[in-house]
Amino acid sequence: MAIRDLILKNRSYRRFDQGFRIEEKTLRELVDLARCSATAANRQPLKFMLSTQPEKNAQIFKTVGFARQLDWQGPAEGERPSAYIIILGDTEISQNFGCDHGIAAQSILLGAVERGLGGVMLGSANKDVLRASLNIPAKYEILLVVALGKPKETVVLETIGQDGKTAYWRDEKSVHHVPKRRLEDLIVG
Amino acid sequence: MAIRDLILKNRSYRRFDQGFRIEEKTLRELVDLARCSATAANRQPLKFMLSTQPEKNAQIFKTVGFARQLDWQGPAEGERPSAYIIILGDTEISQNFGCDHGIAAQSILLGAVERGLGGVMLGSANKDVLRASLNIPAKYEILLVVALGKPKETVVLETIGQDGKTAYWRDEKSVHHVPKRRLEDLIVG
Repeated sequence: MAIRDLILKNRSYRRFDQGFRIEEKTLRELVDLARCSATAANRQPLKFMLSTQPEKNAQIFKTVGFARQLDWQGPAEGERPSAYIIILGDTEISQNFGCDHGIAAQSILLGAVERGLGGVMLGSANKDVLRASLNIPAKYEILLVVALGKPKETVVLETIGQDGKTAYWRDEKSVHHVPKRRLEDLIVG
Repeated sequence: MAIRDLILKNRSYRRFDQGFRIEEKTLRELVDLARCSATAANRQPLKFMLSTQPEKNAQIFKTVGFARQLDWQGPAEGERPSAYIIILGDTEISQNFGCDHGIAAQSILLGAVERGLGGVMLGSANKDVLRASLNIPAKYEILLVVALGKPKETVVLETIGQDGKTAYWRDEKSVHHVPKRRLEDLIVG
């Protein structure tokens, strides 16, 4: 698939067919895409924790926030992610992870979309609870949680309105609309 | 091209055919890939400054650091980038850019590689000089400089050695070798 099509298909999906199982092998292939992506000064300070099991998924689910801009408690049972990749920063390697986790997460999600999966980067997690639930050692900073599954929602890009509001919304058919700024508004010179 | 092939082809290239011109239209298409990529809470705080002109390129070149791990002053005249995309954070939109610039830069570079181009994310720039040279308003934080061109070097991934060193090196044929950690060393649970 052309990269533009892949990027357009790679929306932030938050509702999934929870019964669809993702194998650990698939997560490992996705992490390998991150492994082969750029990292500042080639330090490679990121580590990855994987979850494909319903019990572990449920523990992670309890600690992450989905779509805080909506009046929504996150996906209902049956529509939750089938897997997670938790991106950690190894402070024994570096104290500064720059934007390495953004590069890694983008590679992971593009790989997921190519496989007919999808997901979302979740930056808001109750990190203390997550750390305790999964016994994440103190030396790892929790940077990002990538939720993955078989998407079961429609996400549509919209051109930002006159009001300049960027908050996404859902219509009466539960389609998720995401206002994007115009290209000409992003280019400043 | 499959995403894995694209990611593997997307090495950090630092030597280019400087005579190869990149049109502004191409840079705009690449920024559009970033525009359609994920951004925390859909805030879209990134702005982009483009350069395709030799004079502006030269101004940018003077302020950025290439491959600081090598005893190398950066690409010689004739091997320098043909274009740059400077990724800025608009502090009027957000004070915290998270890893948005990593996501954006990865989309930009994957798009570049698909077009037969390539480049590198440069995090170390003399930001004060860069700001002054290009009259970048104070409200924009300089986050990352993406250098682009027609790559004119060979970059090879290596498995990290027993010494655990991640520094890249060049061999007598000027091939650039990049040691990567093993997948099993990145997965911690």
